[in-house]
Amino acid sequence: VAPRNLGFSEVAIELTALARRAHARGWLLGTSGNLSATVSLEPLRLAITPTGVDKGQLAPEQILLMDASGLVIRGQGKPTAEAAIHVTIARRRRAGAIVHTHSTWANLLSDLHGRDGGIGIQGYEMLKGLKGVVTHQHEEWLPIVANSQEWPAEAIGLASLLDENPHIHGFLIERHGLYTWGENVEEAGRHMEVLEFLLEVRGRTLSLMSPG
Amino acid sequence: VAPRNLGFSEVAIELTALARRAHARGWLLGTSGNLSATVSLEPLRLAITPTGVDKGQLAPEQILLMDASGLVIRGQGKPTAEAAIHVTIARRRRAGAIVHTHSTWANLLSDLHGRDGGIGIQGYEMLKGLKGVVTHQHEEWLPIVANSQEWPAEAIGLASLLDENPHIHGFLIERHGLYTWGENVEEAGRHMEVLEFLLEVRGRTLSLMSPG
Amino acid sequence: VAPRNLGFSEVAIELTALARRAHARGWLLGTSGNLSATVSLEPLRLAITPTGVDKGQLAPEQILLMDASGLVIRGQGKPTAEAAIHVTIARRRRAGAIVHTHSTWANLLSDLHGRDGGIGIQGYEMLKGLKGVVTHQHEEWLPIVANSQEWPAEAIGLASLLDENPHIHGFLIERHGLYTWGENVEEAGRHMEVLEFLLEVRGRTLSLMSPG
Amino acid sequence: VAPRNLGFSEVAIELTALARRAHARGWLLGTSGNLSATVSLEPLRLAITPTGVDKGQLAPEQILLMDASGLVIRGQGKPTAEAAIHVTIARRRRAGAIVHTHSTWANLLSDLHGRDGGIGIQGYEMLKGLKGVVTHQHEEWLPIVANSQEWPAEAIGLASLLDENPHIHGFLIERHGLYTWGENVEEAGRHMEVLEFLLEVRGRTLSLMSPG
Repeated sequence: VAPRNLGFSEVAIELTALARRAHARGWLLGTSGNLSATVSLEPLRLAITPTGVDKGQLAPEQILLMDASGLVIRGQGKPTAEAAIHVTIARRRRAGAIVHTHSTWANLLSDLHGRDGGIGIQGYEMLKGLKGVVTHQHEEWLPIVANSQEWPAEAIGLASLLDENPHIHGFLIERHGLYTWGENVEEAGRHMEVLEFLLEVRGRTLSLMSPG
Repeated sequence: VAPRNLGFSEVAIELTALARRAHARGWLLGTSGNLSATVSLEPLRLAITPTGVDKGQLAPEQILLMDASGLVIRGQGKPTAEAAIHVTIARRRRAGAIVHTHSTWANLLSDLHGRDGGIGIQGYEMLKGLKGVVTHQHEEWLPIVANSQEWPAEAIGLASLLDENPHIHGFLIERHGLYTWGENVEEAGRHMEVLEFLLEVRGRTLSLMSPG
Repeated sequence: VAPRNLGFSEVAIELTALARRAHARGWLLGTSGNLSATVSLEPLRLAITPTGVDKGQLAPEQILLMDASGLVIRGQGKPTAEAAIHVTIARRRRAGAIVHTHSTWANLLSDLHGRDGGIGIQGYEMLKGLKGVVTHQHEEWLPIVANSQEWPAEAIGLASLLDENPHIHGFLIERHGLYTWGENVEEAGRHMEVLEFLLEVRGRTLSLMSPG
Repeated sequence: VAPRNLGFSEVAIELTALARRAHARGWLLGTSGNLSATVSLEPLRLAITPTGVDKGQLAPEQILLMDASGLVIRGQGKPTAEAAIHVTIARRRRAGAIVHTHSTWANLLSDLHGRDGGIGIQGYEMLKGLKGVVTHQHEEWLPIVANSQEWPAEAIGLASLLDENPHIHGFLIERHGLYTWGENVEEAGRHMEVLEFLLEVRGRTLSLMSPG
C-alpha cells in the first residue's frame, strides 16, 4: 500500500466531499466522526478534519495539516482528540486515508457484541468491496475495542491490535463508531460504504430473528 | 451562555437553513415543529417560525419577530401555539436558539417511556456532542412531559423542570417531539442531530432486544 | 372547502413538485401512485398525473386534464385506472387536490389491520396537521378498503364510505397505499406527510412491541 | 420485447443517471452492483458499467461497450466479473437493459429464504409495476440462486432458470443482490424500484411478525 503523492489541497477537497456524502447518509451527525489523509509518511503529515465542525457544511479550507504529535502545521482549529488513532493507523497500515463514522448500526452492534471482542461477517458478496477480498466465502473480523477518552495512552494497544490482525479493514469502538482506512480517500470511502452496509444487514437480520 | 449579537435577518437565514435540513431528514414533516433564535434577551425578542408553514420550503422572509407575550413585532403570520415554551427556554437557559422536532423515534420512545418520566441515555460517544459533556461515561437525562394544548398555563411547570434539571440539553413531550437548544443556531442544530441520533440508536436497540 | 381558482398550468406545476418530493421519500416508487387537482368542480375538471410515468422525473407538461368520465381533454397519455377514485373524492369532499401514495408502512399496516376495517390513530401531536384537528386528544380513523382492479364499479361503495365517515382525512387500500386530499395541493401534501409519518410511528411501535 | 435502437452514447447517459439514483437510495454502495443496456442483439453488444467504480460519481465516459465474450470494444476498464450473467439475460430475455443492485433487504431475504429456492410475493398493488402484470392478485416468484465467483460456468444453469421461469422479472443471488431487466433502461429501472419496494415490505412485515 503506497499512498499517492497528492498535495494537501487535493486531499483536502477529497476529504471534504467524502465527509459531506457520509453526513448526508447520517453517519457523521452532530459534528461526530473525523477523516484524514496521509500527505507524507516520513515525516508523518496528516490532512485531518478539525474537531467540532459540522461535516454537512465542511469546506476544504477547514482541513488541518498536523504532524505525528498532533501539532497543527497548517490551518486553524484543533485536531480531533482521536488524532492518536489516526497516527497509529497511518503508520501501522501505511494508510493513505482514514475514515471514522458514527452510525446507528455501528453503535448498536458494537454494544451488542462488545463482550465477544468483535463481529465476524461472512458469506456476503459485498465483502468483495474490501481490498484483497476476492470471494464472498470470506470471513471479515471486525474487532471491537472499548471506548476511551485517553487515546494517546491506548495507542500501543491499538498498534498491537492492528499488528495481530493484519487482514482486517476496520474496527469498531464500543458504542462509538467505525474506523476504516484505505490506500487513498476513494478506497477509504469505499470501505466505509461496504462496512456500514454489512453492519446494517447484520443489524436488520438480528432484528428480524431476534428472540427466536 | 451568551447569545451572539446577530441581527434578525442573519438568524432568519440560519433558522431557515436548519429547518430545511431537518425537514429533509423527516423530523419536521407536515408543517410540524418550530425553531427560534434570541435576537435580544432584555427585552426578550425571538425570531421564530410561523405556525402552519412547510419547513421544506421555508424562506427567511417568513420568519417572525415576537416579544415575550407572543405579540408579532415584525413579519406576517402567527407564532406557534408553543411560543410560551420557547419563551420559557430562552429565559431559563439564556438560550440563543431553540429547535423543536417531531421525529418517529421521539414519538415512539416518549410513548414507551412516558410513565418513567424520562429516558436515561448513557455510554455513547455521541453524547460528547452535547455542550459540556466531555466523556461517554455520562448519563443524559431526557425528561418526558405530558402533552398539552395550553402551553401558557404549563410555563411555570416547564420553568421548574428546567430549574430542577440544570444539566439537561433537551426534553421530550409525550407522543409529540423533542425540544433542544443552544448558544446559537449552530449549537441548537448540533444538539438536535445528537439527540435524534441517540433516540434512533435506543429505539433500534429496543426493537432488536424487545421481548427477549 | 372551496378549491382555489387556479389555472391548469399552475396546478400542474404544483402537482409535479409534490410528486417529486414524495418520490424522493420512497412513497411513489416504480411509477406507482397518482396525484390530481380540481381545476373546476362544475363541470368537474381534474388535472391528473398520467398512468405509468416515473414520478421522480415528472414534468408539468405530462399532467393531463380530464373530465368526470376520465376522458382526456388536454395533454397526451392515459389517466390512471384509479381515476374513478379521484372523481369520487373530488365530488364527495369538494377536494382541491388528492394524493395517492404507495409507501412501505401503508402496505404493511393495511395488510396487518385489513380485517379490522381500519386503523385508529390517537394521542399524537402530529394529528394536528390534519385540517380541523385542534388537539392531540383526537382519534383519527383511517378506513381500510379491499383492493380492486374495477374502481368504476367500486365508486358507489367509496362514496358511501366517504359519506359515512365525514371526518376522515384519508383511507388505505389493502396492500396498496394511502389516499388523502385537501383544499389545495399544499394541504393535500401536508396530509400526506402527516399520515405517512403516523403510519411509520405506528408500524415501528408495533415492530418494537410485537410478540410481547 | 424489442430493444429500442438507441446509440451507445444515449444509453451510456441513461445508465449513468439510473446508477446515480440507485446509489442515492443505498442500493449500490461501495462500487457494488452493475448495469447494462443492449446496443445490439446480433451480434450482441452491451453497454456496461466497469468493475470497481463508484456508482454515485459515475460518468457516461466510464461506460464500456463489450461483446458476448466480455471483450471490451470501446472504453477503458474491465467489465464486471458478472458480465456472463448480463449476456445470459440479454440473450434469453432479449432484454434492452439489466440492473443488478445490492440492497440490505435483498441480502437479508435471500439469506432467510435461500433454502426455499425463492420468495413468492403476492397480493400487492405494486406488483402491477412489473411488465405484463395487470392485477394485484398475482404471485411473483423471485428465484434465489446460490452465489458463485465463476459465473461463466454458471451461465448454462442461469439460462435454464430463465427458460423454466418464463414469467419472472428478476431473481436474487443469495446474500448478494437482485437482478432485474426490462425492454429499456427506463423499464429496468422501474422493475428495480418495484422489486426493491416489495422486498422492503416483505422484510419489514417479517420483522414485525417475527417470532409470533
